[in-house]
Amino acid sequence: MRELRGIGVGRGVASGPVLRMPDPLPEPATTPRTTDAQVERDAVTAALKEVAAELAARGRQAGGEAQAVLDAQAMMAQDPGLVDDVTARIESGSTGERAVFEAFASFQQMLTDMGGYMAERAADLGDVSQRIIAKLRGVPAPGVPTSDAPFVLVAHDLAPADTALLDLDKVVALVTRDGGPTSHTAILARSKSITAIVGVTGADELADGDVVIVDAGAGTVTVDPSTGELAAAETRTAELKAIVNAPITDGALADGEKVPLLANLGSPKDAAAAVALGAEGVGLFRTEFLFLDSKTAPTVEQQQADYTAVLAAFPGKKVVVRCLDAGADKPLSFLNDAEEENPALGLRGLRALRANEEILRGQLTALAGAQAATEAELWVMAPMVADVEETDYFVTLAKELGIRVAGVMAEIPSLALMADQVVGSADFVSIGTNDLTQYTMAADRMLGSVAAYQDPWHPAVLRLVKMLGDAGRSNSTPVGVCGEAAADPLLAVVLVGLGATSLSMTPAAFAEVRAELARHTRADAERLAAAALAAPTATAAREAAEAGPVG
Amino acid sequence: MRELRGIGVGRGVASGPVLRMPDPLPEPATTPRTTDAQVERDAVTAALKEVAAELAARGRQAGGEAQAVLDAQAMMAQDPGLVDDVTARIESGSTGERAVFEAFASFQQMLTDMGGYMAERAADLGDVSQRIIAKLRGVPAPGVPTSDAPFVLVAHDLAPADTALLDLDKVVALVTRDGGPTSHTAILARSKSITAIVGVTGADELADGDVVIVDAGAGTVTVDPSTGELAAAETRTAELKAIVNAPITDGALADGEKVPLLANLGSPKDAAAAVALGAEGVGLFRTEFLFLDSKTAPTVEQQQADYTAVLAAFPGKKVVVRCLDAGADKPLSFLNDAEEENPALGLRGLRALRANEEILRGQLTALAGAQAATEAELWVMAPMVADVEETDYFVTLAKELGIRVAGVMAEIPSLALMADQVVGSADFVSIGTNDLTQYTMAADRMLGSVAAYQDPWHPAVLRLVKMLGDAGRSNSTPVGVCGEAAADPLLAVVLVGLGATSLSMTPAAFAEVRAELARHTRADAERLAAAALAAPTATAAREAAEAGPVG
Repeated sequence: MRELRGIGVGRGVASGPVLRMPDPLPEPATTPRTTDAQVERDAVTAALKEVAAELAARGRQAGGEAQAVLDAQAMMAQDPGLVDDVTARIESGSTGERAVFEAFASFQQMLTDMGGYMAERAADLGDVSQRIIAKLRGVPAPGVPTSDAPFVLVAHDLAPADTALLDLDKVVALVTRDGGPTSHTAILARSKSITAIVGVTGADELADGDVVIVDAGAGTVTVDPSTGELAAAETRTAELKAIVNAPITDGALADGEKVPLLANLGSPKDAAAAVALGAEGVGLFRTEFLFLDSKTAPTVEQQQADYTAVLAAFPGKKVVVRCLDAGADKPLSFLNDAEEENPALGLRGLRALRANEEILRGQLTALAGAQAATEAELWVMAPMVADVEETDYFVTLAKELGIRVAGVMAEIPSLALMADQVVGSADFVSIGTNDLTQYTMAADRMLGSVAAYQDPWHPAVLRLVKMLGDAGRSNSTPVGVCGEAAADPLLAVVLVGLGATSLSMTPAAFAEVRAELARHTRADAERLAAAALAAPTATAAREAAEAGPVG
Repeated sequence: MRELRGIGVGRGVASGPVLRMPDPLPEPATTPRTTDAQVERDAVTAALKEVAAELAARGRQAGGEAQAVLDAQAMMAQDPGLVDDVTARIESGSTGERAVFEAFASFQQMLTDMGGYMAERAADLGDVSQRIIAKLRGVPAPGVPTSDAPFVLVAHDLAPADTALLDLDKVVALVTRDGGPTSHTAILARSKSITAIVGVTGADELADGDVVIVDAGAGTVTVDPSTGELAAAETRTAELKAIVNAPITDGALADGEKVPLLANLGSPKDAAAAVALGAEGVGLFRTEFLFLDSKTAPTVEQQQADYTAVLAAFPGKKVVVRCLDAGADKPLSFLNDAEEENPALGLRGLRALRANEEILRGQLTALAGAQAATEAELWVMAPMVADVEETDYFVTLAKELGIRVAGVMAEIPSLALMADQVVGSADFVSIGTNDLTQYTMAADRMLGSVAAYQDPWHPAVLRLVKMLGDAGRSNSTPVGVCGEAAADPLLAVVLVGLGATSLSMTPAAFAEVRAELARHTRADAERLAAAALAAPTATAAREAAEAGPVG
């Protein structure tokens, strides 16, 4: 029995044999073909057909959005223009493999240059090309492995294109060597409720067929477990399944105190799924999607239509909308496209909006219009707010433009340190734990070499949350949490103990958080919080809470 | 009377007529010469001679290090290789101006490519080239203007090359449009005790001859002041001069409580000047200078010799040495040369040293050797420390290698938030206000568009200082300040009120800080601190302290 450690996502436990994500195929050599052109052409034609058929079959099996993606890939594999290009390259001396490689690469570049939707499709072409070349070589296609039996997928990291093809009924857990708690793999795992551990040192040593237990709560991968360990893991897996399948109720502590469970949403189309999982409202509606494709800000009318679509899905419920959060790291040419040495510490969030007030005014006006047109209870907040002066600026402008409830995000340490003043001006505060952790620890949340710092369990972060919670309570100002931290069930309890009055997360986390909240009274939650606050490190804080009083 | 506002450096007041730094000359046109080659050659030869003579004369006038720089420039202006290149370019059809421009640019590129000391000289060549071209055109040379009467220098920003040539007897104040409190101009002004305001909106509207009052304490430039205002400014200037010329005493509050004034040093050669200005020790000795020129870490022997040189200048006195503080923004190939999206939030400081422990061990060993060889009281500290776990790591290793007193820098917000735990492990804490402000406000200290956030007066920063001060006091752990904040006299009083037990700064600031401390009792200082803590913004905090109880 060996044990590997990494950063667990959620608290799932799963076990099964390892299947590794194959490495990408080496680039085909440029040496001229020695075979007959017709032989190469026939081989390529056959490979194209087989791959197209496989993709279409997998699409039918997957259904829904994945089917559309796979059908499009199947069509690409037989695109006449591409086939002609491959043929021409073979005629002029290329091997079939090389011809496929080059023709697809050239088509891919063309799509990338077109930008927008077509550019997104370009990545898929790479996958198709790899599949055809694998077929020509008679080796397994890289990309997501398939199996009839459940398995634990082990990879360096997962690309978005890989995960669209994941057969979730078969993948019981994800283990990746790279990535931190906010990596694509972690976000996918959270949104699909897949047990996952990222940043696992030694993951490369796991081989196909190794049996492992993946315990996300403990952050451990146990290799070659004993029969007893396997049985215990299976019991825990069944318990967790029971939690996920439990009836949907409103979020509340064991003593009945309500803790609304709200959804983080990135686009209006996710609203229905959130409601189905029991969202009691929306705690973070990101508005960047409206702006990212445009060279200019969208019109007030366009924005109002989109906001109205979201609000209409939540009649009588709270919907917290965050104003545009962009900067030099997510550059919008009309907002801030300066070269910045440290974009995470640059002109972004409210700072960028204040420097371009017409954009902020347009967004607030559109939101006020949507507020008037629907029955939802709209709350609007500004990102990256530093202190009460900036709070006053935003709240005053929002109210002037007709917003009824206006608040601020707590992401910059200074806002938490000045919480006593801020709660007097903001109608509410929402804690963005990802950025708050990044700045409090001075560690880039996207940088692998400092990923260990990006842990919202760190008592320094929890102490800032407490300042916000205490200030909110003393002034009856709601203080929500909308970072990934709220999706960690035990941390959610600690956050409530520190004064959080609502929790917003990916809807897939509702069931586990709901179950965990129901196990603790307020007094319990406060005791867990106190234990975590007194710990020296993130790991110690988590352990202190785990050892805490549980009914 | 108009008033412009900016970020004051120190608290000086000065008045005088404006002299603007000229804009650089436009690049000479590439159109072929229409004059005789001999005529152009003669004109260039004459211009070279005149410029060389002027530079040499100004060198004699300046003396010291400036003379060496200017003499080198004078020699460059007559470098035979350069003169030959200019002549060749004229022969092949260039105008004299263009030939000078191109020959100097090509030589400059060559020097830059050589790196190291030669590369530093390259910038000076640009200045010489500009002077010669100006002479050929019969226009004033760009670069620092000269005048027989005192003047206020107004510029977009000052380059290091400009400031070497500044006649400090004539420049009564600096006003720049760009730059923040840690810009080159601000650092120069602080180290030379020149009244300065940086980041002044509207500075471009000031014209040569405009009379202005520059009040750094208030951050205001008063244009066309009244006679009464001018007289008041002159009285204040005379008072400040009296302070600078007052006898040197140890730093202390009005009630006699000692507050040692220590020097920030970047290289051993600055030690003597610091002692002359009354340094009671060294509060921050930066060790980067030893590493920056090397492709590998310097040997233990080399380092020990350098550390011994510094320590020997302070027998019986405290010398606080900071271990190597580098990261991807100051890349050392042997430490961390990764590409980082946000180097300020990357693998730097203690994090980088811990990942390369042999470098840290070498440095600590060399320091222990210097400690044994001298009579100074050596304190050693680690940069960029996040919490007590990292503190324990560093202090344990330092003691194991023979360091008697080991502590940590407080630059990351988390360290301040965990101060109650840290003071139990560290022998001392030193607050780096520049980085602490940068992270607490989530604003890059080097980025102009967010320069307004880089103000250590912000009450959020002061609240973190208070956490450190309170923790230090409750455990009798010394808590010093070694950021630029300690050089602001009134802020220095506030820092002492918050619990700072020593202040380290550029020695040029000692006199004013010493005088200001002597005006306040401990009770005063604590009242000023309380007023600043309760303010909503940096500006309000400063105003609250200014309005506070002064004897």
